Amino acid sequence: MIAKIHITFKDGVLDPQGKAVHHTLIDLGYNEVSEIQMGKYLELKMDGVSREEAENRVTEMCEKLFANTVIESYRFTLETAK
Amino acid sequence: MIAKIHITFKDGVLDPQGKAVHHTLIDLGYNEVSEIQMGKYLELKMDGVSREEAENRVTEMCEKLFANTVIESYRFTLETAK
Repeated sequence: MIAKIHITFKDGVLDPQGKAVHHTLIDLGYNEVSEIQMGKYLELKMDGVSREEAENRVTEMCEKLFANTVIESYRFTLETAK
Repeated sequence: MIAKIHITFKDGVLDPQGKAVHHTLIDLGYNEVSEIQMGKYLELKMDGVSREEAENRVTEMCEKLFANTVIESYRFTLETAK
């Protein structure tokens, strides 16, 4: 099972890195960019687990480890490994 | 137009952050995780550009700014903003 996890800041949370990148883009002439959100992306390969188990385990990992749930939100999809 | 960009290490490139996270997961008992890839995720909102323009501009930004194409690869999707 492959889990694809996205972690992004919650709405309203200040994102200094995103702001800095946005400024750079404007300076370089990419004026069409009006908003930017930066986040983390993780891909986990999991062996010998059912979809249900994977869902529980990945939720646990996100809550405990990957995301700071005070300021970040996470979402993930599960795919059968090829 | 919304661009959703994923930047990950190319195959065979050492990913120390991913390795460290993997070790932590194993230590914590998540033995089912056999592989982990960490990357960056960006969401750009772009105003007043066609899909074709957006595609060219985002490619340019990825090549020039977001990805180190020696060791990283990028992919993106474009969606019409709601």
